[in-house]
Amino acid sequence: MLRVAVLGAGRIGKIHAGNIAASSGAKLVVVADPFGDAAQLLAHQLGCDASTDPVASIDRQDVDAVVIGTPTHTHIELMLQAVKSGKAVLCEKPIDLDFAKADAAVSEIEHLGGRVMLAFNRRFDPAAQRLRRSIDAGEIGDVRQVLITSRDPGLAPRDYLRVSGGIFRDMTIHDFDMARFLLGEEPAEVSATASRLVDPTLAEFDDFDSVMIQMRTSTGRQCHINNCREAVYGYDQRLEIFGSSGMLQNDNVHPTTVRRWGKHETEAREPLVPFFLERYADAYRAELEAFFDAVAAGAPMPVTPHDGRQALRLADCALQSAQTGRVVVV
Amino acid sequence: MLRVAVLGAGRIGKIHAGNIAASSGAKLVVVADPFGDAAQLLAHQLGCDASTDPVASIDRQDVDAVVIGTPTHTHIELMLQAVKSGKAVLCEKPIDLDFAKADAAVSEIEHLGGRVMLAFNRRFDPAAQRLRRSIDAGEIGDVRQVLITSRDPGLAPRDYLRVSGGIFRDMTIHDFDMARFLLGEEPAEVSATASRLVDPTLAEFDDFDSVMIQMRTSTGRQCHINNCREAVYGYDQRLEIFGSSGMLQNDNVHPTTVRRWGKHETEAREPLVPFFLERYADAYRAELEAFFDAVAAGAPMPVTPHDGRQALRLADCALQSAQTGRVVVV
Amino acid sequence: MLRVAVLGAGRIGKIHAGNIAASSGAKLVVVADPFGDAAQLLAHQLGCDASTDPVASIDRQDVDAVVIGTPTHTHIELMLQAVKSGKAVLCEKPIDLDFAKADAAVSEIEHLGGRVMLAFNRRFDPAAQRLRRSIDAGEIGDVRQVLITSRDPGLAPRDYLRVSGGIFRDMTIHDFDMARFLLGEEPAEVSATASRLVDPTLAEFDDFDSVMIQMRTSTGRQCHINNCREAVYGYDQRLEIFGSSGMLQNDNVHPTTVRRWGKHETEAREPLVPFFLERYADAYRAELEAFFDAVAAGAPMPVTPHDGRQALRLADCALQSAQTGRVVVV
Amino acid sequence: MLRVAVLGAGRIGKIHAGNIAASSGAKLVVVADPFGDAAQLLAHQLGCDASTDPVASIDRQDVDAVVIGTPTHTHIELMLQAVKSGKAVLCEKPIDLDFAKADAAVSEIEHLGGRVMLAFNRRFDPAAQRLRRSIDAGEIGDVRQVLITSRDPGLAPRDYLRVSGGIFRDMTIHDFDMARFLLGEEPAEVSATASRLVDPTLAEFDDFDSVMIQMRTSTGRQCHINNCREAVYGYDQRLEIFGSSGMLQNDNVHPTTVRRWGKHETEAREPLVPFFLERYADAYRAELEAFFDAVAAGAPMPVTPHDGRQALRLADCALQSAQTGRVVVV
Repeated sequence: MLRVAVLGAGRIGKIHAGNIAASSGAKLVVVADPFGDAAQLLAHQLGCDASTDPVASIDRQDVDAVVIGTPTHTHIELMLQAVKSGKAVLCEKPIDLDFAKADAAVSEIEHLGGRVMLAFNRRFDPAAQRLRRSIDAGEIGDVRQVLITSRDPGLAPRDYLRVSGGIFRDMTIHDFDMARFLLGEEPAEVSATASRLVDPTLAEFDDFDSVMIQMRTSTGRQCHINNCREAVYGYDQRLEIFGSSGMLQNDNVHPTTVRRWGKHETEAREPLVPFFLERYADAYRAELEAFFDAVAAGAPMPVTPHDGRQALRLADCALQSAQTGRVVVV
Repeated sequence: MLRVAVLGAGRIGKIHAGNIAASSGAKLVVVADPFGDAAQLLAHQLGCDASTDPVASIDRQDVDAVVIGTPTHTHIELMLQAVKSGKAVLCEKPIDLDFAKADAAVSEIEHLGGRVMLAFNRRFDPAAQRLRRSIDAGEIGDVRQVLITSRDPGLAPRDYLRVSGGIFRDMTIHDFDMARFLLGEEPAEVSATASRLVDPTLAEFDDFDSVMIQMRTSTGRQCHINNCREAVYGYDQRLEIFGSSGMLQNDNVHPTTVRRWGKHETEAREPLVPFFLERYADAYRAELEAFFDAVAAGAPMPVTPHDGRQALRLADCALQSAQTGRVVVV
Repeated sequence: MLRVAVLGAGRIGKIHAGNIAASSGAKLVVVADPFGDAAQLLAHQLGCDASTDPVASIDRQDVDAVVIGTPTHTHIELMLQAVKSGKAVLCEKPIDLDFAKADAAVSEIEHLGGRVMLAFNRRFDPAAQRLRRSIDAGEIGDVRQVLITSRDPGLAPRDYLRVSGGIFRDMTIHDFDMARFLLGEEPAEVSATASRLVDPTLAEFDDFDSVMIQMRTSTGRQCHINNCREAVYGYDQRLEIFGSSGMLQNDNVHPTTVRRWGKHETEAREPLVPFFLERYADAYRAELEAFFDAVAAGAPMPVTPHDGRQALRLADCALQSAQTGRVVVV
Repeated sequence: MLRVAVLGAGRIGKIHAGNIAASSGAKLVVVADPFGDAAQLLAHQLGCDASTDPVASIDRQDVDAVVIGTPTHTHIELMLQAVKSGKAVLCEKPIDLDFAKADAAVSEIEHLGGRVMLAFNRRFDPAAQRLRRSIDAGEIGDVRQVLITSRDPGLAPRDYLRVSGGIFRDMTIHDFDMARFLLGEEPAEVSATASRLVDPTLAEFDDFDSVMIQMRTSTGRQCHINNCREAVYGYDQRLEIFGSSGMLQNDNVHPTTVRRWGKHETEAREPLVPFFLERYADAYRAELEAFFDAVAAGAPMPVTPHDGRQALRLADCALQSAQTGRVVVV
């Protein structure tokens, strides 16, 4: 039974803590958050300890593994602390908004032989897993083109956007990871185009709300990503993989399969599930189980710090491409 | 080149005449209708003769085949006239609203060796043909259950309904034929339930607007039919065939494949194609070609007067069941 | 925090026990099963007491509510025992295979003012709830026709079928309850047709494997149900409600939304989720929560013993209709 | 009644000639092709004159309009000849493979006030028309992103590819036109990536078989296009328009709506309609009617030589981008 500390009692920390508490393979020991009483409330609800000291929580003797869901700028310090304490780590993305820092941290973790998993949860979505298995089973032959659509239901609060690192590092980073997961190869060239079609005032902090990215691997596989910070019809998450002997797609997820026929339109479905917490609820659970399994088996982590570094690298290339109007070689 | 006379210049006569004129395998010689100037207008438009005398048109030397689209009560007389003149006949359903008369007529046609095809056009719908071919190819094994949904977009005019013969003989008759076509066996028992949910005043002439019919063949295959005279979302025409090794369905037909996503509903399609003339446009053309092919090849008619008689028999059984509240043995 | 005993540690008892253990609003106190070590294994896994004595478990001071998942013939005795002990009860369907006994038991429970909920879990499926809410909200106007398709993935073991009470009481009973739930009125007439198309040797105990049922309420609403004990493509559970201003359907549930396009067919989906435990996993959870909520609030039970009696009555009418070839007035 | 000459009796000429012959608003006068007996065969079948001299056919007194379906390198000469003879012209795309020549020709046509329509037939597909109307009606607000998928069922013959002008000018040109049609603005920047994933030997004539293109208009609207010369599942033609208040998609077209459920996969549809002649059969008819209507009304042509020039310009920009690895400003 793996004993786990959760660092951070915000939106994502709550998800992980709840899933750990409900998991039969792990025990939630402590939730740590230096701010307010969120940790205490969560600990009370889930029946574990609360702490305002993440570092002390890492170092507890009765903690085997640490789940880091704190603000991005604290990820590296806490990860390294946990690695040095010999604890297994599941860390939320991104490693850091600064590539050089992230790169150095990944190198150090690798040097230390740290057992760290990066939390690219979408890989664990049942549909994404199904796609990967189908590709591996040769169902569509060689992958030629990957298309990723990823649109948020609505613009995040301005205070969040201001410190988010920009759309490529904050939003597209998930899609860069998915692209690598589905392409099965490293993108070698990146071209991006970026606009402010939702909110022109994002120019204030040089951010964008609507982007398209095009990538190519060294063997010529191609990938398209589109993002928008606002889609009035809901959280739009679709994948398409086109191969030499077939094509695979997943579709969006609705609360139920119910359709309605009326005078003015037919076959209408209910609105999509609201946002990532609902859309990827299963993925968060499966991600944790994959982490627990890897730790228990001493097996390689299914997603590594290197994966975090590569996604960040692609985000930086995309930003550079959007700013310079040039294709960027990774 | 088959030379054809069309009798009746109403809604259905126009469809047939237009299709004959556009067919490369036949020549439209004359359109005959004793009422008004419909025949003349149609003949002018399509470049053929017009007549007010259906019988004389049948007897023309330059006419090889006759398409009968006149009012129901004239079908038998015109069919027999054409058979006796040695002309091939495509006759609209039903043969007659009275089963005894229809039965006698079919026997006489069979006795005379008449070349007559009954116009159950839905059998020639590309989807129905595809379903029949798939069944014949063994794609779903032995047929177990057939489900037929058939709902009109809106109540027909009261003057039409008054003389229609009632919902079973006027509307369900198409579904009885489709049931026989898809079951591949004769229904042996019929149970029907009938309501007035659209217009209670149909009680005036003992008619119904919403019915369900359940049938069973001697080997135990089952069939469900549902009808309604009004579906606000449009002309609803669906089939399902469930077999021992699979299931087949067709879906409704929309003008295009376009779907719309908005704030309040997602994946909504356009309204269905309006009514039977649009929904079965391809079927009307294919029906004519099948008739021409059978005549040209001297082959058996793909739909026979006997098929017309059987569908009418089932309609009468259903009416009797609805009236008596008993299962009726055919 | 409601303290619950689960009686029966078989397939269905396990589901309920697991859901109670994971529920934040209830506490699993004991699992009781007189046979084998199933209760002990389950209790060990979920951290509660085990017992071989269901009656003693009912009577425990620290038990507020009882979930009955024992064999059908024990339902009435255990239900009445629990009612007399003042415990709230959630009892699996059916009350009993014998209508007279079930009727007497329901009357006694009503007389005693027992707090009993019948476990027609499908009502709590999110799609069924969505359909009911949409109907209540007037989205499709007045209900005219309800169509229920319910086919099992494969024939149950012969030993199960032999004591199941027959297809109408064992399988269709769920659909009779769904019909009442969706029609919003009591069926007044029942007509059924039944065949042995999967396994002719079911004749040995006068059972059937493929049935169709047609029902009519006193205001003329109509309902069709079809069942088959075997559908090679999986567990087929579909609903359609046709109303005066629209139509609603739910579709089957697949493990993911992935579709595949290949050389020979396009848009193919994965096989359906295997069977009722997977298909209705959410429904089982929601059913329990609805039970807990009703107990906590002292509110009317969302499904009552009377509902169980009515479904059984319809099953008996259907059997009688199939045997006699007559429409049966309820 | 417009009197029409068709130049070219190849695949596309046959389509146009057949549609003209079947149109009630036009009369097919002559089919001209200098090679072989294709023109004679077609003329015999459709009941018009045949000629081996396209120029003489243009100049016939009894010809009002000319449809040009000859090889690409003859388009400019024949178009100008027809314009100078005062005939209305419907000319197949592209104007020419060489942008400078095409540009000069368009300028000359404009200078001469020629009545010329470019045959971008896909604009007249009912789904494309529906999409344009929905956008114009404000159904999705301001257009933000357009996605175009266009994949051929199989690699064209090598002899065709050798002289095709390359994938951007031969295949993507349709998508460039569609992008302009749906964006409602001119693309200002083009980025393309191109690979040989189907047939590496296309390197022999510097061509590609798999491409992705990304474009941006001056107001920031974005467009993605993907092409492949081979998709084993068939001719894949899809559009998506994402706007500020909704999204529109069209889907591929199948021969029928039939779906099949079996042991190993469910909801499978039939293969797509084979290729462009079948997929855009309605579009070819509607294109001709739009041409006839514009000529009859003296109205502006629905697609102009300028549209042809712009699509060619974008093709050249894409090629340049793919070759240089730079974003190209149009």
